Amino acid sequence: MRTWNNVAIVGVGLIGGSIGMALLQRKLAKKVIGIGRRLESLEVARAHGCVSQVTTNLAEGVAEAELIVVCTPVESIAGFVQHTAQHCPPNCLITDAGSTKAQIVAAIEGANLNRTFIGSHPIAGSERSGPDAATADLFDDRVTVVTPTSQSSDVALAALRDFWESIGSRVIEMSAADHDIVLARTSHLPHLVAAALAAATPASEQTLALTGMGWADTTRIAAGDPELWRQIFLANRDATLKALADFETVVKTWRDALQSANGPLLIDLLREGKRRRDAVGS
Amino acid sequence: MRTWNNVAIVGVGLIGGSIGMALLQRKLAKKVIGIGRRLESLEVARAHGCVSQVTTNLAEGVAEAELIVVCTPVESIAGFVQHTAQHCPPNCLITDAGSTKAQIVAAIEGANLNRTFIGSHPIAGSERSGPDAATADLFDDRVTVVTPTSQSSDVALAALRDFWESIGSRVIEMSAADHDIVLARTSHLPHLVAAALAAATPASEQTLALTGMGWADTTRIAAGDPELWRQIFLANRDATLKALADFETVVKTWRDALQSANGPLLIDLLREGKRRRDAVGS
Repeated sequence: MRTWNNVAIVGVGLIGGSIGMALLQRKLAKKVIGIGRRLESLEVARAHGCVSQVTTNLAEGVAEAELIVVCTPVESIAGFVQHTAQHCPPNCLITDAGSTKAQIVAAIEGANLNRTFIGSHPIAGSERSGPDAATADLFDDRVTVVTPTSQSSDVALAALRDFWESIGSRVIEMSAADHDIVLARTSHLPHLVAAALAAATPASEQTLALTGMGWADTTRIAAGDPELWRQIFLANRDATLKALADFETVVKTWRDALQSANGPLLIDLLREGKRRRDAVGS
Repeated sequence: MRTWNNVAIVGVGLIGGSIGMALLQRKLAKKVIGIGRRLESLEVARAHGCVSQVTTNLAEGVAEAELIVVCTPVESIAGFVQHTAQHCPPNCLITDAGSTKAQIVAAIEGANLNRTFIGSHPIAGSERSGPDAATADLFDDRVTVVTPTSQSSDVALAALRDFWESIGSRVIEMSAADHDIVLARTSHLPHLVAAALAAATPASEQTLALTGMGWADTTRIAAGDPELWRQIFLANRDATLKALADFETVVKTWRDALQSANGPLLIDLLREGKRRRDAVGS
């Protein structure tokens, strides 16, 4: 496994902080430089063991980087990648950790960086955020999708795969477009549904007192950061709308089954949901 | 706290088994008699510490009971309550653990039992089922709703409250109708939504490999027993349909916000979901 002399992380929240912590604890990087806007937050990240050095100066932070991981909210990723590309060494590998890929990859490849960028999406995280929620094992047994294009070299792709695997992740290659279609169904639609279910629950004290584990599980991700999720939904509107349409079709069948008190149809619907759920496991 | 000489549990699955185990471990009952159809399953419950004795003969099982808890699927509760009432001592208190209440309570009170019945619903459980999933702490810090009527005596109600509190639960009194309206929103709609979301997820290996914690949490309860849930949905159709209509209204707003790429509306929707979710906690 490759070790790095100098890794720069732009945006040291839960994901960026966990990447840095995993690299440092496994001694896979000598220096992990955390780059952000607010020194106070960066110092929290350093104190928590997420990074070894911090700076608010992006150009200085990436000046000697061998690897840069941009972990900012999705709307700002392409801009930060372009900015880091202007200041990092020529052979530096740049990647990101954004929850959407097609818009980001297209914007970066359209900018002709003269640096190597391949998109990544580590499918890990929680409803918590910030560097104090970071853990070194966040990526253990999780999947990271990497989205090479015809512009991506085999050498860079191998290095990127090795990087994610070195911090515990399995790696899957997909096109950015396919990634967004699949994630609309496995992540973005679930977030929409969880948020809608929570919002549709009356705010009365009595109602909220009678929520059990089922409600708690089903709505858990609705606690996520609204601004981060606004950006994700806007960056993956089309695929999310298609996924939503399929969900609405199933819900319509549920409505029909309830209205007509159709027990056999209810059993079919429940079994189909259970079958897909059981196929994944806890 | 009252201790019991003889408690009968009809239907020793996750809930019935956990009640028995809690009573025995806390030494709140001398005998806990498990009553069911299949001796094999009852022996599993006894081996697991859920009950002290077992029988497939309901009349014999309740002959000396001071308390009977009917923990069968909702469609069979009223029938079992009536059956036990014909064979138990005159001063025996009968309750249940059904997830719906109005139909059950109406059927039982309409039958003029000549025994004391007050409905209960312990809001506890998991997607697992069966006596081997039972735990003595299942009700700790959970809420049990009890649904007395004008026919319920204060003495019986006090005994029932004491019983649920003795095994760790908080107790809330509501009418059976109010219970069903609230639970449609806090339990039955979430189950519908989780099952629909799971069923709307393409069954391809690639898609299922890219589900993360969000999908897993949001669909977890879809793994529940389809037959138990068919009965719950049919017993609480009207309230569930009303809750579903409210959910569909929120989803429609989501669809509009995505179609029009309305960032401020997406933020409002996400914030509203987060606000309700944060009000409940983990």
